[in-house]
Amino acid sequence: MSNLVLTTFDWVPPPPRGFVRDLRIRWALEEAGLPYRVASVPFQNRGADHFAHQPFGQVPWLTDGDITVFESGAILLHLGELSARLMPTDPKGRAVVQEWVFAALASVEAASQPWSFFQFMDDAGETPMRKFFDDFLYKHRLPQMEKVLAGREWLAGAFSIADILMADVLRLVDRFGGLADYPACTAYVARATARTAFKKAYADQMAHFAAGDAAR
Amino acid sequence: MSNLVLTTFDWVPPPPRGFVRDLRIRWALEEAGLPYRVASVPFQNRGADHFAHQPFGQVPWLTDGDITVFESGAILLHLGELSARLMPTDPKGRAVVQEWVFAALASVEAASQPWSFFQFMDDAGETPMRKFFDDFLYKHRLPQMEKVLAGREWLAGAFSIADILMADVLRLVDRFGGLADYPACTAYVARATARTAFKKAYADQMAHFAAGDAAR
Repeated sequence: MSNLVLTTFDWVPPPPRGFVRDLRIRWALEEAGLPYRVASVPFQNRGADHFAHQPFGQVPWLTDGDITVFESGAILLHLGELSARLMPTDPKGRAVVQEWVFAALASVEAASQPWSFFQFMDDAGETPMRKFFDDFLYKHRLPQMEKVLAGREWLAGAFSIADILMADVLRLVDRFGGLADYPACTAYVARATARTAFKKAYADQMAHFAAGDAAR
Repeated sequence: MSNLVLTTFDWVPPPPRGFVRDLRIRWALEEAGLPYRVASVPFQNRGADHFAHQPFGQVPWLTDGDITVFESGAILLHLGELSARLMPTDPKGRAVVQEWVFAALASVEAASQPWSFFQFMDDAGETPMRKFFDDFLYKHRLPQMEKVLAGREWLAGAFSIADILMADVLRLVDRFGGLADYPACTAYVARATARTAFKKAYADQMAHFAAGDAAR
């Protein structure tokens, strides 16, 4: 019997709501049907105890008995060990899930996150660096993901933690219109976010931060 | 008995030599004392077989019998399962290693890689985005790593795959002078790169690409 506690902020401003990374963990927990509760730390005035759990002062982290884990990728691997609905148990199946877990973060998000920062900043300008990061995403990551996703429903056979990460990464690209030329990527995000577990996780995050509004 | 084959490029131009990511894998294999051989794929004219192993047309990938894994993080986790010199076997110890594996890539390299692109580009200019990425690294990642590394020799108790990734990520920052104000980070990189296994891996990568020069 697990004793899982997911910690996130008590409140965030409206723009990131629906995209705070505790959503990845909520989604996995809902997919697996694992019981859990959600705890909060202050968004403002982050204390020493917060940094002791998450050295960059971010969220989420997960506690499981006497184990505490930060980084959404590491938390998802930990949950993957708890449920075959999240990660297969055979070595070959695990290897495929794990390579796509890292690809979502270290290859695709490595390009999409800096690209998204340019979308957020009104004064970013049409600089050579903007073109560089556009090319990084539009030439070196999305065309390749489009080919991969045109040929399969989920990255590693069955739905897994790799899809939670990749769909969440691509969802932020989609928010800024970046998937317009990539129908297979768009369909993949739609397929992933149509899942009951995603919808529950999303609604729960939105309700959590709305409750934070009420408490201020 | 493992049958490990590490695939990298047959040649790369001089600037990235010593920093191509097969080095992370060579380093881990040397630390663990695992037998392996190195295979090459063309740097130019990357073929369909290359993309079948690495969907973004990059390197490295590892084959272990009938398992093939791309992404340096995923390969290191795979090797971590093969040797306690790379990752402990108890759940709590593994969780600590895994969170730092992801922190190296998804938190520190997520900031240092775009920062490094600005260092590479002579025409990057002093734009708001350059300041944004400078702040991302110098305010939100390195001061936090400095505190962590001031208090410990290695990230997860004993040396592990987390140190291979974090030291390799910080090593590229150091190359551009970015660690000047961070003595604990600098000492950590020096400590990691003084290891016999790193020196062997580095020398082997340099020799591999030098042999590629000779074959052209």
